[in-house]
Amino acid sequence: MNDEVPDEGDFDADRPRGEFDHVTPEDFIRGSGHGNPPGWLDPADINRARSQMPIAYVEIVPVRADEFGRIAQVGSLLRVTEDGSVERALISGRVLFHETLREAIARNVAKDLGDIALPILPLNLQPFTVAEFFPTPGLSEYFDPRQHAIALCYVVPIAGDCRPQDETLDVEWVDPHSDMLDKFLSQMSNGHDRIVRRALAWANA
Amino acid sequence: MNDEVPDEGDFDADRPRGEFDHVTPEDFIRGSGHGNPPGWLDPADINRARSQMPIAYVEIVPVRADEFGRIAQVGSLLRVTEDGSVERALISGRVLFHETLREAIARNVAKDLGDIALPILPLNLQPFTVAEFFPTPGLSEYFDPRQHAIALCYVVPIAGDCRPQDETLDVEWVDPHSDMLDKFLSQMSNGHDRIVRRALAWANA
Amino acid sequence: MNDEVPDEGDFDADRPRGEFDHVTPEDFIRGSGHGNPPGWLDPADINRARSQMPIAYVEIVPVRADEFGRIAQVGSLLRVTEDGSVERALISGRVLFHETLREAIARNVAKDLGDIALPILPLNLQPFTVAEFFPTPGLSEYFDPRQHAIALCYVVPIAGDCRPQDETLDVEWVDPHSDMLDKFLSQMSNGHDRIVRRALAWANA
Amino acid sequence: MNDEVPDEGDFDADRPRGEFDHVTPEDFIRGSGHGNPPGWLDPADINRARSQMPIAYVEIVPVRADEFGRIAQVGSLLRVTEDGSVERALISGRVLFHETLREAIARNVAKDLGDIALPILPLNLQPFTVAEFFPTPGLSEYFDPRQHAIALCYVVPIAGDCRPQDETLDVEWVDPHSDMLDKFLSQMSNGHDRIVRRALAWANA
Repeated sequence: MNDEVPDEGDFDADRPRGEFDHVTPEDFIRGSGHGNPPGWLDPADINRARSQMPIAYVEIVPVRADEFGRIAQVGSLLRVTEDGSVERALISGRVLFHETLREAIARNVAKDLGDIALPILPLNLQPFTVAEFFPTPGLSEYFDPRQHAIALCYVVPIAGDCRPQDETLDVEWVDPHSDMLDKFLSQMSNGHDRIVRRALAWANA
Repeated sequence: MNDEVPDEGDFDADRPRGEFDHVTPEDFIRGSGHGNPPGWLDPADINRARSQMPIAYVEIVPVRADEFGRIAQVGSLLRVTEDGSVERALISGRVLFHETLREAIARNVAKDLGDIALPILPLNLQPFTVAEFFPTPGLSEYFDPRQHAIALCYVVPIAGDCRPQDETLDVEWVDPHSDMLDKFLSQMSNGHDRIVRRALAWANA
Repeated sequence: MNDEVPDEGDFDADRPRGEFDHVTPEDFIRGSGHGNPPGWLDPADINRARSQMPIAYVEIVPVRADEFGRIAQVGSLLRVTEDGSVERALISGRVLFHETLREAIARNVAKDLGDIALPILPLNLQPFTVAEFFPTPGLSEYFDPRQHAIALCYVVPIAGDCRPQDETLDVEWVDPHSDMLDKFLSQMSNGHDRIVRRALAWANA
Repeated sequence: MNDEVPDEGDFDADRPRGEFDHVTPEDFIRGSGHGNPPGWLDPADINRARSQMPIAYVEIVPVRADEFGRIAQVGSLLRVTEDGSVERALISGRVLFHETLREAIARNVAKDLGDIALPILPLNLQPFTVAEFFPTPGLSEYFDPRQHAIALCYVVPIAGDCRPQDETLDVEWVDPHSDMLDKFLSQMSNGHDRIVRRALAWANA
């Protein structure tokens, strides 16, 4: 999962209740006036929350589907981590205050794949799996040193073009029936490989 | 469900095992050389089967979805029945011998909505509900005087244009939040209204 | 949803990382040494979190099932609210820090139905629906003035005896095919009636 | 899948429509007066159907679950096949004419595990996967030389005692986290191993 802290400095913590009355889905996806989406938290607030509560996440497996709805390719991101190394990851991010799950999915896809990716969002918000990340190693099959996260996982077909941006270097696709799949999965950390395998099992691929 | 008998006269019941080795998805969707898809049965065979076994069906709720994956419109067909009256119905049809579920969905959508409907087939073949039709009234919530049918039900977004054909007169769309929904549903028979309501509940609409 | 604030006074906010290493599921369900489960928050912390982040909830529809897995009865709680009135509600509660979803479901069932309810927890953690509650009326179909909550909703058969406790006055059961269902649902607020209807649609009841 | 032909000799093909009006679930599960359940077919009829239509099946992965709903053990059958060899298999069988899916699941569990197995049938009939078996090798991931079968697959916890009977020699259980799992799965044929893996992925086990 992405560490959102670096980008969370602009949030106005003092805004009154009711401010969200006029927030649009656009504001979440492209950011409101001052650059960050509504609901963004400053580092002190997000860190305190992370030590106190489970954090709601969406985790997205991008795919290319053929005309019969079969998964032809699975996508993954190559990202620069905070320590400068490169990792392979899925699309993921926190659900923000006052943001719907559909907005969170669309915002996180746009953040990593750009504005013309044309994601086909799911009709139904039942996740194909719920991944529970804990900060204690070995407690569950998913580990996240920063937090206890509850990640609702979705498969999202991408119909358009991908334009990776910010810390995402590239988007790479692999045929789930090819030998390359195992190699890609072995490069994923934090249980993202397991999430991909469950997505493929769910989709009969 | 459609009565397929009128179109099932061309099937060659004597063809040997192995004939299906070279059948393509195209053959199921557009028909093979002699006009009917492979797996089609003549009236005597389909009628005997209907008195002996449950028949596997797919039932499709066509929808228009917005960019967030929310159902904006639900579609239904206006069809001429065998007795000349007009009924409102979903897309449905039998799964043919040697046909995959994905092919059966694509074929039945193309049959009723035409070749440029651009259906977005589901990634996952878990039906949102399984409708069990029995020929005995009152036994279950779904009744079909012709047969015991097990219908796997899917919601399929339609991205293209609809060109109704054959006995389908028209395709009509209704906003699921409008007052028209109840009227449309009241015109559906055989439990199709119930299937639409379950589709909307499943999609949180 | 229950307001947890009144019971959240004992939490030791200063405990160090690693404390959860020896927490057992029992601690979540029956409370650890000092009475509250680990992960409980004091009023200031829970209130701040509620103004900053979506809160993860589980929401449980208790049912009695027959030997064929069909829902024979749907349960609801009669509860005293903070203003002294009585409301009809489902079982619901926040997922605590470091608690698994399965522990949260078991803990909340035990809290409202007692220790010998013998709930049959789901094999699969896919919720039948995800209910998104917002503090802004009209924004979504679910409204909660206190918070933005993301509630994962499950149907849980109860095989044992119910012993309501604390602020729960009684547990009442209704046959989903009886006329009483509509009356019960009309007494539910905050969209709990809608959650029950979706549970019944999901279960074909 | 079991070959049902050897037991299908008693069926009275001439019985009139309406006979099913008084059939009870008990008749399907324990057989009606003459020994076979209603809907049973003689070899000629079942063989003809198998060459003409997809056959509806249920396929059941029996499990032992712990109090949190986690799979503690996966069951499999040791069966004598027609050629006298022993195979490891899941519980599976055809859905009979006029039989509900719930009756088919209960009947097939009772057939293989006996009358006091106390299966906990699913609340919801959405299968965790739909396995499509074709008689042409290589066409899909599931092969059945006898037929095209559409198998709705369910995980069913067993709460009672198993008494294998007829051609089932034994029921063996394996911890899904143990090294024995791979050995068990390698002994399964016809894709049953794949169905078990999907069941475990679905249940997060």
